[in-house]
Amino acid sequence: MENFTYCTPTKYVFGRDAELQAGTEARKSLMTKVLITYGHGSVVRSGLLDRVKKSLSDAGVEYIELGGIDPNPTDPKVREGIELCRNNNVDGLVAVGGGSVIDTAKAIAAGVPYPGDFWDFWAGKAIVETALPVGVVLTIPAAGSEGSGNSVITLLDGMHKISLRTEKALRPVWSLMNPELTFTLPPYQTASGIADMMAHIFERYFTNTPAVEITDRVAEGVLKAIIEEAPKVMERPDDYDARANIMWAGTLAHNGICGTGRKEDWVSHFMEHEVSAVYGVTHGAGLAVILPAWMTFMANHHPEKVAQFGRRVMGVMSHDDATAAMEAVMSLKAFFGSLGLPVTFAGLGIDKPDIDLLVKKLHENKGNIIGGYYQLGPEQTKEIYQLAL
Amino acid sequence: MENFTYCTPTKYVFGRDAELQAGTEARKSLMTKVLITYGHGSVVRSGLLDRVKKSLSDAGVEYIELGGIDPNPTDPKVREGIELCRNNNVDGLVAVGGGSVIDTAKAIAAGVPYPGDFWDFWAGKAIVETALPVGVVLTIPAAGSEGSGNSVITLLDGMHKISLRTEKALRPVWSLMNPELTFTLPPYQTASGIADMMAHIFERYFTNTPAVEITDRVAEGVLKAIIEEAPKVMERPDDYDARANIMWAGTLAHNGICGTGRKEDWVSHFMEHEVSAVYGVTHGAGLAVILPAWMTFMANHHPEKVAQFGRRVMGVMSHDDATAAMEAVMSLKAFFGSLGLPVTFAGLGIDKPDIDLLVKKLHENKGNIIGGYYQLGPEQTKEIYQLAL
Repeated sequence: MENFTYCTPTKYVFGRDAELQAGTEARKSLMTKVLITYGHGSVVRSGLLDRVKKSLSDAGVEYIELGGIDPNPTDPKVREGIELCRNNNVDGLVAVGGGSVIDTAKAIAAGVPYPGDFWDFWAGKAIVETALPVGVVLTIPAAGSEGSGNSVITLLDGMHKISLRTEKALRPVWSLMNPELTFTLPPYQTASGIADMMAHIFERYFTNTPAVEITDRVAEGVLKAIIEEAPKVMERPDDYDARANIMWAGTLAHNGICGTGRKEDWVSHFMEHEVSAVYGVTHGAGLAVILPAWMTFMANHHPEKVAQFGRRVMGVMSHDDATAAMEAVMSLKAFFGSLGLPVTFAGLGIDKPDIDLLVKKLHENKGNIIGGYYQLGPEQTKEIYQLAL
Repeated sequence: MENFTYCTPTKYVFGRDAELQAGTEARKSLMTKVLITYGHGSVVRSGLLDRVKKSLSDAGVEYIELGGIDPNPTDPKVREGIELCRNNNVDGLVAVGGGSVIDTAKAIAAGVPYPGDFWDFWAGKAIVETALPVGVVLTIPAAGSEGSGNSVITLLDGMHKISLRTEKALRPVWSLMNPELTFTLPPYQTASGIADMMAHIFERYFTNTPAVEITDRVAEGVLKAIIEEAPKVMERPDDYDARANIMWAGTLAHNGICGTGRKEDWVSHFMEHEVSAVYGVTHGAGLAVILPAWMTFMANHHPEKVAQFGRRVMGVMSHDDATAAMEAVMSLKAFFGSLGLPVTFAGLGIDKPDIDLLVKKLHENKGNIIGGYYQLGPEQTKEIYQLAL
């Protein structure tokens, strides 16, 4: 096991009506005037935004708003938010939405007190030392941003989609998680979220760090729970308990508990980020395509851990690692398929992906050799993209 | 799933030489003068206490000391510590040891700023609102106190052993966890610690709350890891990786992650607390006796979840719940036995336990009807104690 530091101070308030705690929690975290971030109006139409506003007002917390945040959020919205906060003496953010809305709030939170350009943090030129506190009202279980210190933003100039990871600075101060808010998620978004949270576990699970049984077992447990609960939420979108299990699994998948003491990978995420940056696909759906391709490559080159996943999680029985790994890939594809997710570029609606462009941008952004579980150069990442055809 | 609030702000520094961070972490948590608590000198003999002191001194943090804390710690030592802190303007505590040492530090931390008697908190007459910050250098993986908000203290007058549970106030600010410090633990203490951490999971796992698959699976994962790693640490006490897995499992067993969204039980702990209060046995060894007795009772009265534990964790195959539950009990007893732990009162060295006294004190302390998974009155708890003969 590797040495590690682990600290997750986020306070989770989980359950029915959790969003009504926004005002109380904002006060407790010393917010007096907040910027509320949200997406394209579903939180307006559902009345959620009004409930959050009322909760803030009732607690004496002022607010201004920044709506219209897109999936795969980009830097102009972040810059707009930073200006808004500075001009209005905002001292906290409340993100009402999913990963894109939360990640934008985190980027604004980091940018406001920073004298330089906020992109410096994403470009690796500066480290986030201080940030405004961020509170979350979660509506989409997927990105895990409600518990993580991460934020993924795309720089429009060059379409660079980059994930910033902080140990603690950008973890939300509080996250309000009401599973009922996810009843109305469209099936494709529900399924994509499930693929995303599974990917967050895989990226940690596939490691060469030996003797990490405790995190292996926890990761396998979270994966098993997701695989058992996923069909229930697809079949009955208003199944509270199934939604609750999926929602909490999404947090555990990405708050770091599945990664303690081990080298992580993240190549599948990097490879997908190029796909969604270029083709604008839903991140989780892109992952449902990339993950099996990556695992297929590994079945041929480094099958051990993929085989373990197959045996312990997917019920694969083969003793030979390469065979067990390929069986794991097939059962994972079948699982994604059963949720209505694509497992090929064509299924994503990309008939002729420009793989050379994807490979070029990937290695430009991430370096010539990438990957933790298995090191990949441009030749290998090209092969993996091709396996997704 | 039940609604829940979950917040674990403790910063874990895990790995070789972690104890050398004591000074830095004390400074970061604004400690200027600390009380170091410890037990009966093994930390002196090993040189650990000196390393911690040097780390504090190097960081400019002053310290005074309170050694001689016993297993099953009692109120006089807490009162002594509170006086010491008040007379010396101490603003933080550093516990160097296992559960008893940490729990005493927490009790002192709660007592110093409180104008009344610290026992008020344990007696349920007051709630801990504020406490001095507590840092931990962990030497025994067992009690999980390095990550929990709990503290177990025995009031000498009447031998009342009571566990106080706080959501956040008494969670350590930081915990330094170096698995190497556990290499020299005697086998019996290592094994007792393993039983203790398993019990912390069982008390959460055995619930009637339906549809808690995510926490069930996480709990089962931690149990599996413990069962796989335990024989390794018994066989090779200096196996770093096995010690590391056990140490981190002990934290996850009790920092609340296995209990989110469910009603918990804690009857086995309550029943054992009476045994160790009256007979002074090691808490974990007492649990190795009580847990199988409790499960045996449940196999006859409410076997479902015991059967699930048997099938998912112990490899039991029987389809009938009562049979599967009894097989789970037998395999758990065999596992404890393989670690050198007792599974009966006689094995604990108590040939004729005064069961009537244990039952009387148990219900005096905890009420006439106790238990979450199954409600137990004096008649039933007497039967469980008798099943441990």
